[in-house]
Amino acid sequence: MSLLIVGSMALDTIETPYGKREYILGGSCTYITTSASYLTDGIRMVGIVGYDFPKHEIEFFKSKGIDTSGVEISSDKKTFHWHGVYHKNMNIRDSITTDLNAFETFDPVIPEHFRDSDFVCLGNVDPVIQKKVITQLRKPKLTMIDTMDFWIEGKLPHLLETLKLTDIIMINDSEARLLSGEDNLIVAGRKILTMGPKIIIIKKGEHGALLITPDTLFSVPALPLDKVIDPTGAGDTFAGGFMGWINRTNDFSDDNLKMAIVCGTVMASLIVQDFSLEGIRDIPKDVLLSRFKDIKKLTDYKDIVL
Amino acid sequence: MSLLIVGSMALDTIETPYGKREYILGGSCTYITTSASYLTDGIRMVGIVGYDFPKHEIEFFKSKGIDTSGVEISSDKKTFHWHGVYHKNMNIRDSITTDLNAFETFDPVIPEHFRDSDFVCLGNVDPVIQKKVITQLRKPKLTMIDTMDFWIEGKLPHLLETLKLTDIIMINDSEARLLSGEDNLIVAGRKILTMGPKIIIIKKGEHGALLITPDTLFSVPALPLDKVIDPTGAGDTFAGGFMGWINRTNDFSDDNLKMAIVCGTVMASLIVQDFSLEGIRDIPKDVLLSRFKDIKKLTDYKDIVL
Repeated sequence: MSLLIVGSMALDTIETPYGKREYILGGSCTYITTSASYLTDGIRMVGIVGYDFPKHEIEFFKSKGIDTSGVEISSDKKTFHWHGVYHKNMNIRDSITTDLNAFETFDPVIPEHFRDSDFVCLGNVDPVIQKKVITQLRKPKLTMIDTMDFWIEGKLPHLLETLKLTDIIMINDSEARLLSGEDNLIVAGRKILTMGPKIIIIKKGEHGALLITPDTLFSVPALPLDKVIDPTGAGDTFAGGFMGWINRTNDFSDDNLKMAIVCGTVMASLIVQDFSLEGIRDIPKDVLLSRFKDIKKLTDYKDIVL
Repeated sequence: MSLLIVGSMALDTIETPYGKREYILGGSCTYITTSASYLTDGIRMVGIVGYDFPKHEIEFFKSKGIDTSGVEISSDKKTFHWHGVYHKNMNIRDSITTDLNAFETFDPVIPEHFRDSDFVCLGNVDPVIQKKVITQLRKPKLTMIDTMDFWIEGKLPHLLETLKLTDIIMINDSEARLLSGEDNLIVAGRKILTMGPKIIIIKKGEHGALLITPDTLFSVPALPLDKVIDPTGAGDTFAGGFMGWINRTNDFSDDNLKMAIVCGTVMASLIVQDFSLEGIRDIPKDVLLSRFKDIKKLTDYKDIVL
């Protein structure tokens, strides 16, 4: 199977209560591809970077088995740079700088040899771009998009167009409420199901995630951690784990979607324990397996007989 | 086994976006006992009501197999009356009236025939009262208390005294942060473990509950509901389900504590779907069993092999 991942690639400067890092890897495509690479091969990366993007980071993606032939390198522009500062309560952050640079005109032409991709994961970009990507593809089995309040508020008609072509939407709880106009998350999810997607994934941060399909409700908590160093990229890493598992198994039954959500949860638990991508740059297999056990222990209980 | 439950008994007036009910059953003891009665027998109730408390409601408790001989009926005072109004976002509520009435001087003498109780559940009352109750008992196997920000802020030294005599504390997330001075819930829970209790249950409302013991972390989501009519008593009903299961099984291994948390979750899911106690006044067994199945379906997934 093959998994096409399209999104931003960036060099971020991040400050959290645990320190500051400058010009480190960022961007949705970066997190999604790397996360998925622990679960599947056949990953295809589409993004744009500037002339200043470190060559060894492209080599890093290749070392993970990721096909980087869809990454454009601008000869005259720098890489997208975001500078964010997290508060002590890391649910709150301030954006100090957002220099789009090479990403400003991102309008990807999907390489011919990527157009037959089986699965597609589109990071949080303009829904117009998302639609243009989807319509370039032959016949993907399943297409997922991420989106955010900025597009819901600013480009709703376009987002609704894109949703009609989308199988899975991944969205956080406040955005699900905003998109649906419903306070109750279950009602919100069911309403979004009428907009096109067959599968709704609602991310609730430290409270975990919720899967809503026409027939299934599934909830998984985030792995409780005693230290979160940097929450940047947690949602994208979650998406990478999810779509990585789907591509690995080529199975989108409700039961397997549940397992994919758990994969996303495991990957997200790893990314937040270090700055930027460092938490998943090189995970030994035993660490990965032990996280799966941790989630099972955290959620599993014996059948109750009354 | 026997389960002693001590707390408030009230007649509430409740307004939610779904309507208004006047002088209906309320109080922690009311919710805890009724909830526990679906899981166990041997329930002993200690509380105080006024001369206006409906006789048929005492008969209702008896019909659930609850021993009401510890309920004092004041001859000259009315029953505790609380009037609350919930906002559209039902996490916010205003207290319009709090007339303590007979409850004002609540300082229970535990009847001699209740002093050998195996398990004890103390609703959210003054920690001084909680301590006085505990010290009247012979040798309970496990004692649980509920508490709130009012006591953490106003009577911390007394609460810390009571905690030393307590095995289980049930507390909501913001109160756990307040009591421990820690933002991170896991760190908060571990700190509270050093204050006396061996078992910490952190209630997270719509996000479910977390169990923290020295060896175990367990998380269960709340059952997602498309309609919440009245959230009053959800935490007490949760406590009743939890302690009801413990009393039924006489087993406080970590594995069984997990099952008890699920029992609490099921009972809480029922109470919020109607006003006051109505949601659990008469639950058919098949409805109860189907809720247990719902929680299992919501949380269970197949083992993941990489």
